Formats: sequence, structure tokens, C-alpha cells
Amino acid sequence: MNFKLTIQYDGTDFCGWQVQDNERTVQGELQRVISLLEGAEVHVAGSGRTDSGVHAEAQIASVKLSKPFTSEKLRAAINGNLWGDVRIMNVEKAPEEFHARFSAKGKTYVYRVVNAPVMSPFWSRYAHHESRPLDVARMNDAARLFLGKHDWTAFSAANSDAEHRVRTVQEFNVESRWDARAGASLIEFTIRGDGFLRYMVRSIVGTLLEVGRGEKDFDTIQTAVVGGDRNLAGATAPAHGLTLVKVYYE
Amino acid sequence: MNFKLTIQYDGTDFCGWQVQDNERTVQGELQRVISLLEGAEVHVAGSGRTDSGVHAEAQIASVKLSKPFTSEKLRAAINGNLWGDVRIMNVEKAPEEFHARFSAKGKTYVYRVVNAPVMSPFWSRYAHHESRPLDVARMNDAARLFLGKHDWTAFSAANSDAEHRVRTVQEFNVESRWDARAGASLIEFTIRGDGFLRYMVRSIVGTLLEVGRGEKDFDTIQTAVVGGDRNLAGATAPAHGLTLVKVYYE
Repeated sequence: MNFKLTIQYDGTDFCGWQVQDNERTVQGELQRVISLLEGAEVHVAGSGRTDSGVHAEAQIASVKLSKPFTSEKLRAAINGNLWGDVRIMNVEKAPEEFHARFSAKGKTYVYRVVNAPVMSPFWSRYAHHESRPLDVARMNDAARLFLGKHDWTAFSAANSDAEHRVRTVQEFNVESRWDARAGASLIEFTIRGDGFLRYMVRSIVGTLLEVGRGEKDFDTIQTAVVGGDRNLAGATAPAHGLTLVKVYYE
Repeated sequence: MNFKLTIQYDGTDFCGWQVQDNERTVQGELQRVISLLEGAEVHVAGSGRTDSGVHAEAQIASVKLSKPFTSEKLRAAINGNLWGDVRIMNVEKAPEEFHARFSAKGKTYVYRVVNAPVMSPFWSRYAHHESRPLDVARMNDAARLFLGKHDWTAFSAANSDAEHRVRTVQEFNVESRWDARAGASLIEFTIRGDGFLRYMVRSIVGTLLEVGRGEKDFDTIQTAVVGGDRNLAGATAPAHGLTLVKVYYE
């Protein structure tokens, strides 16, 4: 039986999604627990990797099991063996051909920034702190320059092993709202695409933050997006502001 | 010069507000840091204690200093010496007679509950988890029974050393809203009063949770509030769901 898992995790204390020797990873924890329940080694396929410190509100994974678990029992059994910073929110039976990574059609990430003189302790794990003023309307205007199908070499890890670096950004909005707990403006960069290269979202957000501080103009961005010159991109924004919020399937 | 400090803290890793030997407390951290800056031992007066694990979005404290700090510099200097789970959000100069505790006219606390089968990792530090269904409308109706001036013996710590146990609850609402990050209903119990005894909010919320689960009726609550019989109150709700959100001054 093939199962589709919806997973939340606070990435703070994980070395990312992908299993690694001697490191605590989300995939590693899930494989350890589900292998125990199955009584045999299992492979948990995620929709994609997330880097160390990156969070997920709805990561998707698939796993094939031979034992006759019900969805509800499987969810409870897995959660009962995990620490509280990772949780299976939902389990459902999936068609045999469903694969969390290969069946994925796209993803939405949110990057959060608290723009205030002082960083609220309630957001310090989940948002990047910027104390300098940010022009949200200008960043939202500049966000349009990233829409469309491009080669994202300028906005991805230099050592990325991706063969093809062409991806399509379908939606990208920058919005600010008052967050009462932070006592500050919380800026959310929401980006949807058919796929993302390593560091791509954080590099794009880092570039927009320079726009928001008035340090980068639209022409430079346009040139970086079209021309693929890595030197024109901004600094990569820190991992802990980034959250995977949705994975799309047909 | 007398200063008024507005403080946020994530109570998870603190043994409460009040200074204690060999324990990490918020008051202890603040007094350590501000004494260093002042070059002499200082007393930081809080609006009141919060228990171990309880959070604050806007705790108020006052402190008298002889060095000529500006508000901005004092804030930056204190924050620069604290861990990220406690932050001075604001500093302002206050009249000589201002005292965070004695000048306080009342407080508002929020108690948060995630009502869902699975607890989101993003709320596990800040909200109590209840997987059984809760009747929010019924809890909100029952909340009215707690309004007014009463002796709160039945809803406070047995070993409370408070001489007078009469307090007035001025507002009390129970509201539920969808929280996208939790993927669940977040229920907020918002209570305002002229003061609260130790465990009072958590005991009242614990009692209302029994109402919400259909385990306690309105008559029992009425009798507990009026008659002061501790056996009629519910279990004390866990500390980590509780947050001090506002302290009122004239």
C-alpha cells in the first residue's frame, strides 16, 4: 500500500530533510520510525529537500508499506515515536504510481521577515530580522521581474548539481501585515513555481531585500534574471526565514 | 532616572519571572545585565510574577538608574547582552513615582489552545493541545460566569500567600479562529482583570475546558465562583499555553 504523508516540521534542530550519517534529519527520523513499525527498512520519498534550518507547514512524502495499516493508526503510531518538532498532520492512501517527488507539479514557499527595531522572541526561529526600513511596495513591484521561465543559475548554489536550471516562477507577492505578537510588521514573500533550485528562494529574497533597502535597482535585477550573472544577485537570505507551505499535485 | 521597560519573553527556557538562586529567570537575567551596565546592583520591578513556562508579549518592568542613559541606547545595550528568548521591546523615561507593580491597574492574559487531532510544531511551545472536540460557544457562554468581583480561593494555588483573594474579572472572551500555520483551530481565552492570583487564569481555563468537553455544567461553575469550593474547579491548564499580553496603567 502506498501512503501520502503531510508533514510539518520546525527546521531549527534538523540538518535539513535529506538523510545523512550522524546528523538529525527529517527524512532520517521518519525512516527510522516507520522502519520500526513496518519491521523492515523503508524509503520515505519527500517532494524535495529542504536545507538545514528551513521549516515546512506541509511537506509531502510517500512511502510504500506491506503491513495493513489504516491511515489513522499509521499517523498516530508515527507521531507517537517522534519528537514534537516534527509531526505527521495527515496520512492518506495513494495510488500505486504516486511518488511525492516525481508526481509534484510545483511548490509554494513563504519567506518571513520581521521589520522592526527589535526582534520578537516569538518569531526568532521562524523569520529573519531586518531592523532597517524596507520599502514593501517597491519589493512587490520588483517581484514581478522574477516571474516567468528562466535559467536560474544566477540565483542558485554555485555547486548545484542540477542538470537543468530552467524553472518557471508562476506567482510572487510581497505583503506586509501587522503581527500583534511581534508588535511589528511581518513581511511575507510568497513564491510559487514549478520547481526551485537549491538556495533559489533565499537568493531571490536576499536580492529583493536589497531592493527594499534602496541598494539595488530594477535594471540590475532584470539583467541578473535574463543574463544569469551571479554577481548581480544579492546575498542569500538566512535559512530560518524560509518555510515550505504547499506542494502541488494533479 | 526611572525607566519603564516593555519586555517580551518566550517562557519555555525560564523558571518564571522572579529571581531565584541557581535558576534562569527573566528578572534574574535583566538584573544581571542592567547591573553590569549601571556598574552597581539594581532592582528590576516587574508588574507581577509569571510562572515557569508562561510567556509575555508585553510584560512591564521599572528600574531606577543613576547613569545618564538615553532610552534608545539603554534598550540596545540590554538587548545586546541577552539571549534571543527575552527582548526589551521598548524603553521610556517614567515619572519618579512610577512602579511597574504598584502603579498597575490591571492585566490581560491570553490562554491559547490548539484544538486538532495533531499538534503543530509551530505552536507546541505557545499553546496547549486538546485533541478532543471543544464547544467554543458553550465555553464563551460559561466565561460570563467568571465576570465580576469574587473571592477566587477556589481558583488559585492552595499555598498562595495572598492575603486578600478578592479580584475583579472585567472581560473574558473565548474565540476560535483558523490558524493556517497550525492547519487547525486556535482557541484564545482572553481575560482581563484588576489582578490575578497564582494559577488563577490557568485554573479558570482548565475549568472552561471541562465545560467545552461537556464534562462540567454551568451550575457547578456558579457554585465554585460564589462558594469558593476548590473541589468544584477544574484541573489547572498547563503553563505553556499562557501569555501575559498587556498591563494597564493610568
